[in-house]
Amino acid sequence: MLSIPNPFEALNSLETLEILETFESLEALETPCLIIDAQRMDRNIQSMAEMIRKQRVNLRPHAKTHKIPAITLQQIEAGAVGITVAKVSEAEVMAAHGIRDIFIAYPLVTASKIERAIRLSRQIELLVGVDSLAGAQLLEKIAGRHGHTLQVRLEIDTGLRRTGVLYEQASELAAEITRMPHLRLTGIYTFRGSLLAGKPTLDVAAAGKEEGTLMVQLAERLRAQGIAIADVSVGSTPTALYAAAVEGVTEVRPGTYVFHDRMQARLGVCSLEDCAGSVLVTVVSRPSEDLAIVDGGSKTFATDIQPGTDPLQLRGFGHILELADAQLVRLTEEHGMIELGPQAQAANLRIGDKLRIIPNHICSTVNLHNHVMMQRDQAYKRMPVLARGMLE
Amino acid sequence: MLSIPNPFEALNSLETLEILETFESLEALETPCLIIDAQRMDRNIQSMAEMIRKQRVNLRPHAKTHKIPAITLQQIEAGAVGITVAKVSEAEVMAAHGIRDIFIAYPLVTASKIERAIRLSRQIELLVGVDSLAGAQLLEKIAGRHGHTLQVRLEIDTGLRRTGVLYEQASELAAEITRMPHLRLTGIYTFRGSLLAGKPTLDVAAAGKEEGTLMVQLAERLRAQGIAIADVSVGSTPTALYAAAVEGVTEVRPGTYVFHDRMQARLGVCSLEDCAGSVLVTVVSRPSEDLAIVDGGSKTFATDIQPGTDPLQLRGFGHILELADAQLVRLTEEHGMIELGPQAQAANLRIGDKLRIIPNHICSTVNLHNHVMMQRDQAYKRMPVLARGMLE
Repeated sequence: MLSIPNPFEALNSLETLEILETFESLEALETPCLIIDAQRMDRNIQSMAEMIRKQRVNLRPHAKTHKIPAITLQQIEAGAVGITVAKVSEAEVMAAHGIRDIFIAYPLVTASKIERAIRLSRQIELLVGVDSLAGAQLLEKIAGRHGHTLQVRLEIDTGLRRTGVLYEQASELAAEITRMPHLRLTGIYTFRGSLLAGKPTLDVAAAGKEEGTLMVQLAERLRAQGIAIADVSVGSTPTALYAAAVEGVTEVRPGTYVFHDRMQARLGVCSLEDCAGSVLVTVVSRPSEDLAIVDGGSKTFATDIQPGTDPLQLRGFGHILELADAQLVRLTEEHGMIELGPQAQAANLRIGDKLRIIPNHICSTVNLHNHVMMQRDQAYKRMPVLARGMLE
Repeated sequence: MLSIPNPFEALNSLETLEILETFESLEALETPCLIIDAQRMDRNIQSMAEMIRKQRVNLRPHAKTHKIPAITLQQIEAGAVGITVAKVSEAEVMAAHGIRDIFIAYPLVTASKIERAIRLSRQIELLVGVDSLAGAQLLEKIAGRHGHTLQVRLEIDTGLRRTGVLYEQASELAAEITRMPHLRLTGIYTFRGSLLAGKPTLDVAAAGKEEGTLMVQLAERLRAQGIAIADVSVGSTPTALYAAAVEGVTEVRPGTYVFHDRMQARLGVCSLEDCAGSVLVTVVSRPSEDLAIVDGGSKTFATDIQPGTDPLQLRGFGHILELADAQLVRLTEEHGMIELGPQAQAANLRIGDKLRIIPNHICSTVNLHNHVMMQRDQAYKRMPVLARGMLE
């Protein structure tokens, strides 16, 4: 049985509870480590909350980016109605730390996970994704066995070709679900953030508008069929604001905005100065004038956004803050190879020097780290990434 | 102060100690999870140990692949002289679990890490990498302050352009190190496994021979200068056997062989039937005839060996065991997109079905998982990846 703390109590105490250790200076940190600039994070949390509030739309951030309950609580304090996760195990960690409104935006198709979701939904407000008749039937069967009603949202594929029922088949499936006595269909949702990176043009405003419009039109069609659709949930960090502006959208689910990253900066969604996460590395070797080796490789920096393989045209595996014409061009597991241009060579980088690098993709980078160093003023607080590796 | 258990006691008890839970069938496992076929692993450990023993060369496996102390102990029981790690933190985890002979094959260039290494070296047999004069001077200074002598090995760059002193500058640096009273230079080492993946031809035999020959020639040159070089340490999983055959090589350090992976199979080093690690995933969505979505994405499968970007010509992010003409073509964080060819479509894959996928790169895949499921006969034992995320 999970023990759910009082959320208000939690709000006041959890940031403290989650701190393992405090360091008084950058020099005291062992490398490589992931530093989060708390001031930038605060600003990102506030600014997204305000922008979305102005649209009179709900904000339900995806916790996949940080996987840290204390940060979720801060997002809720800033106005989020609840959070989004991808895994039952993530929901369990978040619930155990006081989060009381969670959307598992993922189809649950095995008995054990559905059992776990039902257990959770007896204690917190829980929403679960569904995108197939087989999935809905299993949810119905198990919920029925427990005499429990599960709240579900129907996932719609709006072009990403991932999970989600095909747009044109949504009406039929929605109708089936509404006939299931132990499922309550509250709405529809979609995700197409990853679609952007694969597009030749990167017009996030148009993409957000299109996303919102597609979903509102579908909601209208379902309502015309007599299906009560309350939630129309869309959006990713790049499209949230534009999707929220579409009349009829009720909720957006951005995740990355909490820290931002180099990919978002490249999309024009933020500036590099908004990026709260950076990896602190140490130069461990200077084999030649044009090469510096640092102690972070593919076990430290995410490699799922590969430089040069998409229209974002990212050069290197991250943006090096201290050096203008240097690139993190190559990673092996524990080594990062930085090519130094003429200016960077003039900086006369020495063994033992530290560099800070904004990763291309912060979400999968955080997932490589057991903890982050939360920097507020000159103090660095070591906080565990409590939902890290919660795959199951 | 670390407490180091008796290694023999450890050998008998640790596998048991490290087991968190036992499942009696595949059906009982939550997905995604990383299954290790213990029989294949045993065979890989034995066969590498025997092959290297026949060459009368020492085997010092790299623990980066599994990061599990119990597996290290098994490698030592099979004949390994000790292990290799990349990080002080990995060495600390391994030492705390009874491993008493560790080579940190990485330059330590900051005071705190050197202090930690010295602490360890008072309790176990420790070797540390060095590749620069600045690094050696710092090691000397701190070891001197403690009145301690550190055993070091000089890393040589034999073409990977990573860490390692340039081949032609090795003599001079080795001579400098031998003049430092608190450093004892025991030998030289190199790594060029990653070089293979970037080569147009993949002749691992020639590569191993070249690697061994280069290093033996250098050792001879250093000895002619009056520098006592005891260890000539080389090799990776693909080259270990061929490098070990070179007269004068004293040690090889393969890592991946313990589990093997799709990349090694592509290199011809093993067959897919030797691969002990596979990720169990569940089909969560079947949006169309030619597409299945599974619950493992880039937080489950390593993406540092990208399909199609290297001469290995790997198609997809892993090899799907159950389906002949299916490919894991695309990953987002928690979704894997499998394209199904005609045969795979005929298999009529259903939501809830399970698949097993051999990852392209097992080392960085293990690093994404908090635990592995060690399969022996029909039982699956959940073992934590104790040195996972030990970045610092």
